[in-house]
Amino acid sequence: MTRYALGVEYDGGGFLGWQRLSKSGTPDDTSTVQAALEGALSSVADAQVDTICAGRTDAGVHAQCQVVHFDSDAARTPRGWLLGATARLPPAVCVRWCQPVADDFHARFSARARRYRYTLVNRLARPALERQYLSWERMPLDADAMHRAAQVLVGENDFSAFRTVHCQSPHAMRNLHGISVVRQGERVVVEVQANAFLHHMVRNIVGSLLVVGRGERPEGWIGELLTGRDRTVAGPTAPPDGLVFVSPLYPAEWGLPSEVTLPAAIG
Amino acid sequence: MTRYALGVEYDGGGFLGWQRLSKSGTPDDTSTVQAALEGALSSVADAQVDTICAGRTDAGVHAQCQVVHFDSDAARTPRGWLLGATARLPPAVCVRWCQPVADDFHARFSARARRYRYTLVNRLARPALERQYLSWERMPLDADAMHRAAQVLVGENDFSAFRTVHCQSPHAMRNLHGISVVRQGERVVVEVQANAFLHHMVRNIVGSLLVVGRGERPEGWIGELLTGRDRTVAGPTAPPDGLVFVSPLYPAEWGLPSEVTLPAAIG
Repeated sequence: MTRYALGVEYDGGGFLGWQRLSKSGTPDDTSTVQAALEGALSSVADAQVDTICAGRTDAGVHAQCQVVHFDSDAARTPRGWLLGATARLPPAVCVRWCQPVADDFHARFSARARRYRYTLVNRLARPALERQYLSWERMPLDADAMHRAAQVLVGENDFSAFRTVHCQSPHAMRNLHGISVVRQGERVVVEVQANAFLHHMVRNIVGSLLVVGRGERPEGWIGELLTGRDRTVAGPTAPPDGLVFVSPLYPAEWGLPSEVTLPAAIG
Repeated sequence: MTRYALGVEYDGGGFLGWQRLSKSGTPDDTSTVQAALEGALSSVADAQVDTICAGRTDAGVHAQCQVVHFDSDAARTPRGWLLGATARLPPAVCVRWCQPVADDFHARFSARARRYRYTLVNRLARPALERQYLSWERMPLDADAMHRAAQVLVGENDFSAFRTVHCQSPHAMRNLHGISVVRQGERVVVEVQANAFLHHMVRNIVGSLLVVGRGERPEGWIGELLTGRDRTVAGPTAPPDGLVFVSPLYPAEWGLPSEVTLPAAIG
């Protein structure tokens, strides 16, 4: 039995999210990314393959490099898994890389950080080009104000104000490593890294930052929300279209590709 | 009667190309970008609106900022045209900006240059994220060799080797202002500007540069193709997915937005 790690890229637009809905999905179930991936891997292995991912994404949320692990005793090379699974996956999903890992590697529990990126088009007309990967804000945004306002979130904090009522996490403490809001022409890009995220946490943070960016609330409001820990007074949940799970990050000792490995100084 | 210039953005994936197929399209014809746009503008004007564009794009080719002009005596503000047309257009098309222009402005004949960008993903697995806007090359590409090989194309040249047999232009002389091939991680981006392009010229140039990039031909082959003027010996036409018409460029005197205006020194 060998444990493998996979880097998986997907366009979440046509999926109900990452997580498989039933324990034993039908072989051709492509309603969720997990069901589609497990169907493809099982076909390559000629045996049932179950996967565990670094971070479950919601309906409509994309992933640049989701990481999963699975166990198999099928005699396949990493290249064979990559090409075989990708050939069997729908166009919206592919395997970026595959490699054998130590038996105690766990895609979820071994991850030390996760990075997300949220991209908005900020102009009068909705986006047409790349619209599948963008959200849209018609009112002019002050990205610098959003960036300054967001800095209060950095550190070990209780993020109750930014979790959905459906969040199943036993507590709301998360360590937010960094957040930036940068204007790139007509786009506004929010990048955020934390040890882990609560359900809807990125989209709820973005939703509240948009309120500040439009000038409807002062920059200090984000700090008030954080300390108030009351979801009902924060901004609305931003739509999923603009959200990309960039990647989880693992300590260098696992020997994974650089795109999912922490810089040595932090790892 | 007022003449207007429009900046139009579109995802060409679902269209048969820019050009309207019949003289009088049905109001809800969205098989071509032109028919969709004229249907929307005609609805806003409550009268038939005909458009002329800077550069007709082929089926599947995208535009970041196509420019069109049209005449109307409907009393609409530029903002009214922009919002009204965009609201009536399918999700794959929007109006970026609208402004009144001098009566002798012509979207096609006033343009002094056109810019295109072609983006490939160069890796083992096909792209999933942003795949609608990317082409894919599985074999490793030497982007530096492609860039060096392409420089022979710069200047006033006969591009017969890179035009399709369906090209209706009376001659094949074009002034290619510049071309660059740059690797950005797993992507290879080709950017090219010329006074005008022949039919399929960008995709045929990219198709031949890919032959060089894979090492199947030496860098000097591109120059041989150019002087040979024989389309049948050049590389295959690259697929449309990765091709974006970035914008036409006009002299500053027309007062158009900066994204479609030549730098002052050249204009």
